[in-house]
Amino acid sequence: MMAFQLGSVATKLEMLSTSDHSSIVSMNMFVALLCACIVIGHLLEENRWMNESITALLIGLCTGVVILLASGGKSSHLLVFSEDLFFIYLLPPIIFNAGFQVKKKQFFRNFITITLFGAVGTLISCAVISFGVTQVFKKLDIGSLDIGDYLAIGAIFAATDSVCTLQVLNQDKTPLLYSLVFGEGVVNDATSVVLFNAIQSFDLSSINPSIALHFAGNFFYLFLASTLLGVVAGLLSAYIIKKLYIGRHSTDREVALMMLMAYLSYMLAELFYLSGILTVFFCGIVMSHYTWHNVTESSRVTTKHAFATLSFVAEIFIFLYVGMDALDIEKWRFVSDSPGTSVAVSSILLGLVMVGRAAFVFPLSFLSNLSKKSANERICFKQQVVIWWAGLMRGAVSIALAYNQFTRSGHTQLRGNAIMITSTITVVLFSTVVFGLLTQPLIRFLLPPPKQSTSALSSDPNTPKSVVVPLLEHQQDSETELGGQDIPLPASFRLLLTTPTHTVHRCWRKFDDAFMRPMFGGRGFVPFVAGSPTERSPR
Amino acid sequence: MMAFQLGSVATKLEMLSTSDHSSIVSMNMFVALLCACIVIGHLLEENRWMNESITALLIGLCTGVVILLASGGKSSHLLVFSEDLFFIYLLPPIIFNAGFQVKKKQFFRNFITITLFGAVGTLISCAVISFGVTQVFKKLDIGSLDIGDYLAIGAIFAATDSVCTLQVLNQDKTPLLYSLVFGEGVVNDATSVVLFNAIQSFDLSSINPSIALHFAGNFFYLFLASTLLGVVAGLLSAYIIKKLYIGRHSTDREVALMMLMAYLSYMLAELFYLSGILTVFFCGIVMSHYTWHNVTESSRVTTKHAFATLSFVAEIFIFLYVGMDALDIEKWRFVSDSPGTSVAVSSILLGLVMVGRAAFVFPLSFLSNLSKKSANERICFKQQVVIWWAGLMRGAVSIALAYNQFTRSGHTQLRGNAIMITSTITVVLFSTVVFGLLTQPLIRFLLPPPKQSTSALSSDPNTPKSVVVPLLEHQQDSETELGGQDIPLPASFRLLLTTPTHTVHRCWRKFDDAFMRPMFGGRGFVPFVAGSPTERSPR
Repeated sequence: MMAFQLGSVATKLEMLSTSDHSSIVSMNMFVALLCACIVIGHLLEENRWMNESITALLIGLCTGVVILLASGGKSSHLLVFSEDLFFIYLLPPIIFNAGFQVKKKQFFRNFITITLFGAVGTLISCAVISFGVTQVFKKLDIGSLDIGDYLAIGAIFAATDSVCTLQVLNQDKTPLLYSLVFGEGVVNDATSVVLFNAIQSFDLSSINPSIALHFAGNFFYLFLASTLLGVVAGLLSAYIIKKLYIGRHSTDREVALMMLMAYLSYMLAELFYLSGILTVFFCGIVMSHYTWHNVTESSRVTTKHAFATLSFVAEIFIFLYVGMDALDIEKWRFVSDSPGTSVAVSSILLGLVMVGRAAFVFPLSFLSNLSKKSANERICFKQQVVIWWAGLMRGAVSIALAYNQFTRSGHTQLRGNAIMITSTITVVLFSTVVFGLLTQPLIRFLLPPPKQSTSALSSDPNTPKSVVVPLLEHQQDSETELGGQDIPLPASFRLLLTTPTHTVHRCWRKFDDAFMRPMFGGRGFVPFVAGSPTERSPR
Repeated sequence: MMAFQLGSVATKLEMLSTSDHSSIVSMNMFVALLCACIVIGHLLEENRWMNESITALLIGLCTGVVILLASGGKSSHLLVFSEDLFFIYLLPPIIFNAGFQVKKKQFFRNFITITLFGAVGTLISCAVISFGVTQVFKKLDIGSLDIGDYLAIGAIFAATDSVCTLQVLNQDKTPLLYSLVFGEGVVNDATSVVLFNAIQSFDLSSINPSIALHFAGNFFYLFLASTLLGVVAGLLSAYIIKKLYIGRHSTDREVALMMLMAYLSYMLAELFYLSGILTVFFCGIVMSHYTWHNVTESSRVTTKHAFATLSFVAEIFIFLYVGMDALDIEKWRFVSDSPGTSVAVSSILLGLVMVGRAAFVFPLSFLSNLSKKSANERICFKQQVVIWWAGLMRGAVSIALAYNQFTRSGHTQLRGNAIMITSTITVVLFSTVVFGLLTQPLIRFLLPPPKQSTSALSSDPNTPKSVVVPLLEHQQDSETELGGQDIPLPASFRLLLTTPTHTVHRCWRKFDDAFMRPMFGGRGFVPFVAGSPTERSPR
């Protein structure tokens, strides 16, 4: 039955019909622009204001202008925005790489705060924006929008841009902020998408407690199931590569298998209507903890850089596209009749985004601080401001969701919908460029780098970041740092061991050593020893 | 004007509309099957008969059967074969990687023979097959085929399968054969595609000398222009990476730039109606000679393995697909009325392929031998047999061309066309599986490995194959080997220096040292020295 559907509908797939020559022209231009972005991004590297995202956005804008002029005002982009292109091909490598390169210790230390921000925060933000929009938009003349649209707008603008955050914050300079804001971004992306789908599918005319409960249950199910799927996929890849010892014959096979399994986890999540973003993120974490250590040295270097490169290209692609799409004339034509309305809508949305984010960052930070005993672990007010600010950027997820809600295959004929699309683009452009440009100066202003604690926190040898590392020595270090009550510790580590989180950490480490590593490999597993793969010898 | 076309037609592009759930199901199955192929390929590694291509083909066939049964005989594949998918996404990485990893010395030493085989040989083969087909098919009842179709069949079946050849022959064990057969395969692919396009576009009702001359001129123009474009793209990438010294800031940027520039060269070739295959092949060669040496150590490892992995996955993808498509019920329905005709057509084609290949391998080898003075460099009869045999496999290029000629977007309603498609699939399957399986045993039977000469020839330190190599020492070696008349040579190298090819080699080496390397970097260029990039110091 399933297979029947497969065959018949797959006929519609016809994957890429780019045979006509003009599409080759546009692909050429797009690839050339990507190259240009990379080169210019390199030249602007030392510039403290710019980053790759903004460069790509601006190049996209300029190209859009050029095409617009050359085409006599007919069109401004080379490719029609495709949600599928975005969600199926561009987003997975970015999120997977984020999970693969994230500093796991930092991430899990702040896991509760991150989940609080990402899940509860997004709900608050969505509610604030939806409420504000319903109140204000009625007074503006912007065509037909119903309650579903208003809620959708809430979900659309609750999605922060984790991609841009990655570029603005620095994992090594501000590790706590990075892990909070980025972790929140990933959970937030998932929450927004789930929320958005829920809004589109639920009957919203009658909201009652049972529906709300159903909604909440659905959300938790999605969260847990997605995470579990990602973990299982990661562990499976680790097990296969360790057991079959694939590196013995071919490095390429290992790399291919890691890549395909990661992608498979994303596609499986989509298959079961779960959140692919969460799945592939956790798959990345598990792969970097187990699988990555089971492969040969050259596979490690290759995967580390290849995943980062794919993610990097996908990011530039997205920003280039968003920049180019911003000038799409079809939508602006509707708006040009009443520029005032459009500006008003955009400003209102921008204001609501800021209020909506403030409405959860400060209260939830307060809550989170209540649970922390040491002053070191609390989020001070200045840090809260940075968290609030750094998450204000809206990006490609917002655009993708807006296109999904307000267009049919990239086109729209309704005035209200066109205004929403242009406003989304305006908000995304404005927030990315203005907020993005100001983030680094703001961080420098509010948080002058605290030398000592940074260096202590940022050295996490468990991530793929540090590649050419003598395995066993470093492992001893990391053991010492985390589970070492039997060994005298340097004073700087004392502080880190006082909070309950570290008990969980120690338990996990013990479990990891006793059950997981013998099964799935991981740090210390040496795949290039001849004969059968040996487990790490106990100290 | 151009940009106008861009925008308006790009709207049709809509890159991948895979939003419906069933296409996600089929993508899942496809990715899962790719994983399965890799794992099973690994398990069969020690098996001397099988290789990855045949494994993928067989898995594809089995899946096809399962889907066919599950769908109640409606369909057997997950994706409709798309020429564009093949020519725009799958073929470029394979051919680029081939150029990137090819042993350049071997390749250029045999350049004339390779060109002779690839260009003249393909023409002969095409002529033989076309002639045979016109003579025989008239007597069979296979529907309406005109002179254009017959010539197209010649071009379709003149395309050898360079992908499969790569898997069957071994670069280290039989370097001469590998470089001849594989080099021929690349030139041959290009020739076939050029020939095919020429046949489709020229008016074939009146063939006269001026058209023939035009055709020949066109062919040479394509060959030279494509090569030049590839070389220029490669040099440009080397120059940019050396001059801007991109590795200083980011490994990912280097890798991304190499990947994108390589792809850009392919797309540019397609843009100018050149042969993308040739372009990307020479781009790969130039990149491995210059660009690859200008990047950081980790970029080298990454590019080497990432390109190989991409190529590997693309190969498996193609074979898996071909296997699955073989059972496509739509085409077989036409054939099932007259199974005898279909078998006859397939056998005739198979026979003509063998005759057509024999018709150029032996005469051209004879010609090539005439120009060689030393017996060592001649192609002995046994080697000729292996060359003949190893190039008998037909692959995805043939299928893609056949689909182009005989279907409209993957479907056909004419009986003659359906028979041609099924016969092509039969020939491809049969030749890949049967000839492919027998190649390795045949080589072992005809050419028991000659220990000494192999090891002398196969050590080419200029290719990315050997990564962790002390740079300067090895360079000295390679200099000695090639341009060293001022240094006393070991006896085994004397023989290699007697033929005129080596004079050309020496000239090239001098030119390379004097002009190209200072400009474009290459072996010996050390990008990780602080300060401005320095050129290799003269000895």
